[in-house]
Amino acid sequence: MITFQSLQNPRTYAILGTGALGGFYGARLQQAGIEVHFLLRSDYEQVRQQGLTLESPDGNVTLPQVYAYRNVCDMPPCDVVIVALKTTQNHLLPDLLPPVLKDNGVVLVLQNGLGIEVEVAKIVGSDRVVGGLCFLCSNKIAPGHIRHLDYKQITLGDYGIETNGESYSPCGVTERMQQIATDFERAGIPIDCAEDLFIARWKKLVWNIPFNGLSVVLNATTHEMMADDQTRTLAEKLMEEVVLGAAACVRAIDPSSTRAVPPHFIQTMLEYTAKMTPYRTSMKLDYDDRRPLETEAILGNPLRMAKQAGVELPRIEMLYQQLKFLGARNQV
Amino acid sequence: MITFQSLQNPRTYAILGTGALGGFYGARLQQAGIEVHFLLRSDYEQVRQQGLTLESPDGNVTLPQVYAYRNVCDMPPCDVVIVALKTTQNHLLPDLLPPVLKDNGVVLVLQNGLGIEVEVAKIVGSDRVVGGLCFLCSNKIAPGHIRHLDYKQITLGDYGIETNGESYSPCGVTERMQQIATDFERAGIPIDCAEDLFIARWKKLVWNIPFNGLSVVLNATTHEMMADDQTRTLAEKLMEEVVLGAAACVRAIDPSSTRAVPPHFIQTMLEYTAKMTPYRTSMKLDYDDRRPLETEAILGNPLRMAKQAGVELPRIEMLYQQLKFLGARNQV
Repeated sequence: MITFQSLQNPRTYAILGTGALGGFYGARLQQAGIEVHFLLRSDYEQVRQQGLTLESPDGNVTLPQVYAYRNVCDMPPCDVVIVALKTTQNHLLPDLLPPVLKDNGVVLVLQNGLGIEVEVAKIVGSDRVVGGLCFLCSNKIAPGHIRHLDYKQITLGDYGIETNGESYSPCGVTERMQQIATDFERAGIPIDCAEDLFIARWKKLVWNIPFNGLSVVLNATTHEMMADDQTRTLAEKLMEEVVLGAAACVRAIDPSSTRAVPPHFIQTMLEYTAKMTPYRTSMKLDYDDRRPLETEAILGNPLRMAKQAGVELPRIEMLYQQLKFLGARNQV
Repeated sequence: MITFQSLQNPRTYAILGTGALGGFYGARLQQAGIEVHFLLRSDYEQVRQQGLTLESPDGNVTLPQVYAYRNVCDMPPCDVVIVALKTTQNHLLPDLLPPVLKDNGVVLVLQNGLGIEVEVAKIVGSDRVVGGLCFLCSNKIAPGHIRHLDYKQITLGDYGIETNGESYSPCGVTERMQQIATDFERAGIPIDCAEDLFIARWKKLVWNIPFNGLSVVLNATTHEMMADDQTRTLAEKLMEEVVLGAAACVRAIDPSSTRAVPPHFIQTMLEYTAKMTPYRTSMKLDYDDRRPLETEAILGNPLRMAKQAGVELPRIEMLYQQLKFLGARNQV
């Protein structure tokens, strides 16, 4: 295990992107007595004056006063900077991250997809990045008003240090991950600490690629997709390609590695999806609200990594191509 | 070349399915002085009383009197029985064909897809089937009222005789094909006589599978699909799989065969599509009008034949699965 410098105690947090996800976790952290600074765009005036409101099955809460900012240059440097924007906004990160990150702080990437930590590492250094995978159903229903529906847990994984140009080497459960976990658990968010962020991200893609992608192309909820034999079979085939892609990428780095998405994981995910409350995926919500789709982070990056590792994933590629067409037309 | 018995001269025609396609060709044949008998369902009363109307860039025509029938048992047995139904109605053929087919007559299958002749051969005998591939843009805009937009040519191919359980052996340009060609050409329809119906059908699938399928999944015209780089690439990949499927099926019958879709055919089809008037494909018209989709004839049958020949076509399979989902939901 690599040893990184500990984070300061108590830790301060910055939330870049106070939407359904950033607003939820940020509000919970502040509610637990942790100092949180929120970056906002369109909701800035509302939140500065009225604070944040959170509806949740765990209990509703109003935070009448929050530290709200429109510009990172006005924010104090923080110990943990949470990237909670959509990945389609990541071209802004080179400007957003440096001013708000403390010298010994870390960036916590709470975004979907693969390869985002690589981009963040280029900005802040590879030793200052932690990844997080959120399992959360939450919507922003009005400015500063978040409705939490279901789930909330996060899987944390340390990005480690890039060595010989290779990224995502497994680096175990680091102390700084545990410190962040402590803060979130204090805020009532269950945390799973993964020893291997790369595999954790591919595992999440096993679900995200088929169900986010097909929900847009087929205009369907998770329930409708699972109820149709053809679509369930297609989802399973797509999942098999994700597992294949993960294996190829791991093999390309180290042919003797045993890192892998476990084979039974596909069936686990299918059973879990069959049982879950029918809902619109995050990509479908983006599509229906005419926001840009996270096609590159969720499908494009894994596809390109797999291709570089020498494996073609024809169904994922086809889904990517369909989403690129539908996403572009949706923005006209 | 196999020699079949000549058809009688002059020949009488039955049209099973007097819609955009059957109505168009039937009206043109009757206009040329050929005896044509039309089977109708919902439009029967209208056509019996008012005849058929055809709008066309080649000239509008009204046929105030046509032989119209609601039941095949009332029709005289004909020399050429044209199947112009949608393939989704083909479960009716065992009842429709025998009463209307003369002892020495042939069935001319003017439908999309693959494997339809095999089904027809089971009903009337494999030596009594000719296939035809129509290149036609035509709509039925009201009962007995057809609007012809563009194209009209037909590629004819004789089905031959099933030997040792094998179907679609190439059997050259037979006399009966030439007789049918003479009638159509007299009616102003250009005819191309193919020596190999199987390859002719796969060639048509090179266009039909990507553009019919994607037009429904992406809700797009041919023009929109060709204007988008991702979709154009996807169409090309799908075309490559069609060519692969054809090759595998030919190889499975005769490993030494040189029958094939020529390699340059994909580029020819892409260029042709880029230049054509933007239009909604037949499957998209069916989808928009909430009719059943011809998914099995156009994608399911070729997929199953290719699978039996030992080749997987992942993109076509995925398109098939997506169309099955969308088609089923469209019928609710």
